Amino acid sequence: MEMHGIDHIGIAVYSIDKTLPFYTDILQFTYVKSEIVESEGVKVAFLDTGNVKIELLEPLHTDSPIHTFLEKRGEGIHHIALKTDDIERDLAFLEDQQIRLINKTPKKGAGDALVGFVHPKSTYGVLYEICQKKNKEH
Amino acid sequence: MEMHGIDHIGIAVYSIDKTLPFYTDILQFTYVKSEIVESEGVKVAFLDTGNVKIELLEPLHTDSPIHTFLEKRGEGIHHIALKTDDIERDLAFLEDQQIRLINKTPKKGAGDALVGFVHPKSTYGVLYEICQKKNKEH
Repeated sequence: MEMHGIDHIGIAVYSIDKTLPFYTDILQFTYVKSEIVESEGVKVAFLDTGNVKIELLEPLHTDSPIHTFLEKRGEGIHHIALKTDDIERDLAFLEDQQIRLINKTPKKGAGDALVGFVHPKSTYGVLYEICQKKNKEH
Repeated sequence: MEMHGIDHIGIAVYSIDKTLPFYTDILQFTYVKSEIVESEGVKVAFLDTGNVKIELLEPLHTDSPIHTFLEKRGEGIHHIALKTDDIERDLAFLEDQQIRLINKTPKKGAGDALVGFVHPKSTYGVLYEICQKKNKEH
């Protein structure tokens, strides 16, 4: 296991369009990009805070896990993404340590990163994402 | 408003002693220090992830806002702390922008930092802490 800090914090919102001005005009974070992540059924928007990115997550349909989260908890912090340079090694290590994984093999996340989620039951309530950027982009 | 990135992510837990091995032995983050923050009725433990700190928060008694949070939501991510070098300026700016503040004047937080919380009703569900370190410690 070798984590290289926090890549981003994921925040579930009903509408990126409505939320974005708070982040760009009030907190004055830098807007980076938006994209669709089909595997999660979400539209995402990234903001740069200086040392860590914020990922706003808006559900595209009712099958999205973000839709379920919003129904249950309302808007708020959804996950913390930890940066790695070898996701296969780290998921294997976690499994070996009896940590429950949501994804035993990496899947494609935003920005073509490889991602895997760790179950909050094994982490004292926090949904952690392990995230390996393409081409060692950091 | 001039934020200098994210200082730490606050995570509410029932027991720091029980939670700490997951952070130090599994995720292999560096343990920094623990302290009591009387104003919040909590014991806190800081871990360094590399670019951002994690603050574990354990309630000292049932009057603590962290006790209330745990009763309502269970263990999980509690707040995001944004780093500033002038908290008075930033709280004034936020108020001027019609953002609802929990603390209109700064109070003492962990590590003798000056802190002020912003109401999640004004931030699309996220509890943000504005945090100014003593002696420009970063």
